[in-house]
Amino acid sequence: MAKLILDISMSLDGFIAGPNQTLENPLGEGGERLHEWVLPLKAWREPHGLEGGETGPDSDLVEEGLQSIGATIMGRRMYSGGEGPWAEDPNADGWWGDDPPFHHSVFVLTHQARERVAKEGGTTFTFVTDGIESALEQARAAAGDKDVAVAGGANVVQQYLGAGLLDELSIHVAPLLLGGGGVRLFDNLDAGAVELEGTRVIESPAVTHLAYRVVK
Amino acid sequence: MAKLILDISMSLDGFIAGPNQTLENPLGEGGERLHEWVLPLKAWREPHGLEGGETGPDSDLVEEGLQSIGATIMGRRMYSGGEGPWAEDPNADGWWGDDPPFHHSVFVLTHQARERVAKEGGTTFTFVTDGIESALEQARAAAGDKDVAVAGGANVVQQYLGAGLLDELSIHVAPLLLGGGGVRLFDNLDAGAVELEGTRVIESPAVTHLAYRVVK
Repeated sequence: MAKLILDISMSLDGFIAGPNQTLENPLGEGGERLHEWVLPLKAWREPHGLEGGETGPDSDLVEEGLQSIGATIMGRRMYSGGEGPWAEDPNADGWWGDDPPFHHSVFVLTHQARERVAKEGGTTFTFVTDGIESALEQARAAAGDKDVAVAGGANVVQQYLGAGLLDELSIHVAPLLLGGGGVRLFDNLDAGAVELEGTRVIESPAVTHLAYRVVK
Repeated sequence: MAKLILDISMSLDGFIAGPNQTLENPLGEGGERLHEWVLPLKAWREPHGLEGGETGPDSDLVEEGLQSIGATIMGRRMYSGGEGPWAEDPNADGWWGDDPPFHHSVFVLTHQARERVAKEGGTTFTFVTDGIESALEQARAAAGDKDVAVAGGANVVQQYLGAGLLDELSIHVAPLLLGGGGVRLFDNLDAGAVELEGTRVIESPAVTHLAYRVVK
């Protein structure tokens, strides 16, 4: 069965976004620094429709991660880019543009039903109103023989983790202390709810890649 | 000048102690799991007066760390082991026993003046009431040509980090999600207050050692 993977950049102090997220700056203040390591990489630029880029271990790791994923799950705010226009118009478009970088089926957890959206390049957004297990089931069916990624936000990750549904964590620890009250990846978890086993460490000058298997 | 080093074990979700710390369990619920990796090591057992133990990269790293340190700074609660008897009797002994594992001068940040305590094996506890810079100055003088460690708790670490006085971080990331509202190492920091540079990653099955230099 397809595994459910979390693949995300986190600061050393545990944040995946800075404070004061807005539609213009969905990563919050300073949050873009979490992703500085990935932006120059060939494996990141390609699905974003950009040519060139750096090759090497970081790029290989990103490419390997992307190629293993056949469907993605995300929260509603990650789809719409913060509260944004959705608060007024439930049919407003998300902020991913005409050719989103996923190129596969994306399942958006929301309380408000709406029609499936098909974008260029193979990305579709399907809106799931009946909970995280239903979204996972649909994503697994769409992923074929590949795995499923949970993209965020933190609240969605915490729901899957707390429910024991996440299989693997791939955490890219950026050498940053973001501080200042951003969004913590690991929060609201019961003590001892999750057991991990370290599976891989890859070091690069810009970031440290830590991989874990969820044991329970 | 002697560097100020933080050398500490942290869970992947950023905790250095579990919830509900008491005098009997100063690491809080589940907090002892943060240190499981270090307890079997020869380099940890030796200063604790224990024979034998595992050798290898983890033990070498611990030994290297310990040998570089000539003085230690800690908070009052780390000295006394939680609130404990100190709350009633300011001259009550700490919980480190007759032969503490430091074997050098320890400076305890406190608001309550008291006499210096000399223990077996070369450990002394000096109580500093005039702030973190004074403690650092005294520790540097005591450390000779070695470095100074800030041992904790989190509040003391955050004060030194926020004041720009920490030079290096050596974080041992245990493959754990402690969850449940323990003590976070990195908290109460202003956004963008600290810049880091990754200097070393050492992987072992039990723990991942991440080292950083504080750039500002």
